[in-house]
Amino acid sequence: MNNKPTLYTSLSPALLHLYNVNDAVVVIIDVLRATSTIATALFNGASFIIPVDSVEKCIEKGKEMGAITAGERDGKVAPGLQHGNSPFEYSRDFIGGKPMVLTTTNGTKLLYMAVANGAKDIITGSFPNLSAICDHLVKQNKNVVLACAAWKDRVNLEDMLFAGAVIHRIEDRFSIDCDSSRMAKKLYQQAMPNLLDFLKTQKASHYMRLSGYGLEKDIQYCMTPDTANVLPVYREGRLVITQV
Amino acid sequence: MNNKPTLYTSLSPALLHLYNVNDAVVVIIDVLRATSTIATALFNGASFIIPVDSVEKCIEKGKEMGAITAGERDGKVAPGLQHGNSPFEYSRDFIGGKPMVLTTTNGTKLLYMAVANGAKDIITGSFPNLSAICDHLVKQNKNVVLACAAWKDRVNLEDMLFAGAVIHRIEDRFSIDCDSSRMAKKLYQQAMPNLLDFLKTQKASHYMRLSGYGLEKDIQYCMTPDTANVLPVYREGRLVITQV
Repeated sequence: MNNKPTLYTSLSPALLHLYNVNDAVVVIIDVLRATSTIATALFNGASFIIPVDSVEKCIEKGKEMGAITAGERDGKVAPGLQHGNSPFEYSRDFIGGKPMVLTTTNGTKLLYMAVANGAKDIITGSFPNLSAICDHLVKQNKNVVLACAAWKDRVNLEDMLFAGAVIHRIEDRFSIDCDSSRMAKKLYQQAMPNLLDFLKTQKASHYMRLSGYGLEKDIQYCMTPDTANVLPVYREGRLVITQV
Repeated sequence: MNNKPTLYTSLSPALLHLYNVNDAVVVIIDVLRATSTIATALFNGASFIIPVDSVEKCIEKGKEMGAITAGERDGKVAPGLQHGNSPFEYSRDFIGGKPMVLTTTNGTKLLYMAVANGAKDIITGSFPNLSAICDHLVKQNKNVVLACAAWKDRVNLEDMLFAGAVIHRIEDRFSIDCDSSRMAKKLYQQAMPNLLDFLKTQKASHYMRLSGYGLEKDIQYCMTPDTANVLPVYREGRLVITQV
């Protein structure tokens, strides 16, 4: 029919095995807040970020490398770590030139799962680096899997909206036979006039959880496109910015 | 906060384990076409339907009971069975007073999975029996899990639209903290003016697959509310109509 590469959306880590990640660019999406924080820290000069899947590894790696240890469990700073998962913690003054080790409830776990499933080409996406992601995917002209981190495997609105934003921008370049992608695009198009307001009026679960902790400012930042427009690529265990 | 029962939507059998089905009414949803066909056959007088999860069991059970054997694999009549999964095959003349054994790619498998997960209160839902489902759920005033059969574990539009239709009607009676339910409702509200047209313009995967087999009439029927408005309840291995 056509020779366009394919694009699929996996709405939960529990669905990732349904998609062939071996020959695809896999975009790890954890909008609130892991991948937004990753983009922000790298944009602000972090030398690299090591994502790890447990607090213990985070502490161990942090000591070993003299790195900033950061992360959350259930939306709060994980006990034993120095810093949390808020993009506002990672200003240029603070993070510039420093390495960072990060663990989060959903995002870093999904990245490890993608690696375990054979993904060789992994990037992280969020609204703060939306354009960088879209430009890269178009340039690569390879199959794509948009992998939502969700919340403890439960599908969430904000990650789906980001998938929808990517699809809305670049769908013409891909062959998309995937109802999850269709839903994501339709929802994004509804939410587009005001993404933050959409989460608020829908009472999205993680919006409610984080705003209950007084983190509305974080959410607003995380739903704003292109404020930290870099391309985080996963290479040899590290997330780095690279010109591809 | 309130004492309303909870309502959750599971978008795929691969996500069902995330929800507590033990103390909930579980609504099995396989709009195209298993649960639409179940409602139709029972509405037209089938004495009962035995859902089974393999073609072999279907043939065996059918012989044993002198029942109509019906089912599909990949949207086509399964080899070895007498009949397919089209609601139009089950007119009153044909099915009235007869037992039926049914196996389908997704719907009957999900029902078995719900049983294995401990569900004790299972009904089947589709647009042809939308009002019967909604009335029942409101009357029961118990927790609800709307369980979408999806397509080989991949989330699909039509089952999500049915979940959305139920939520749209009865959400006031339930406490809903579930992004999948919120998405389903939003999508349904967009699609509501013309459900069939929505599937068509979205090029929903299973719409395309079935219409490719010339089954557009089936799809149209399956997206039309309340044409076979009965309540199929799963009791001792059989789906029966019952006044609850």
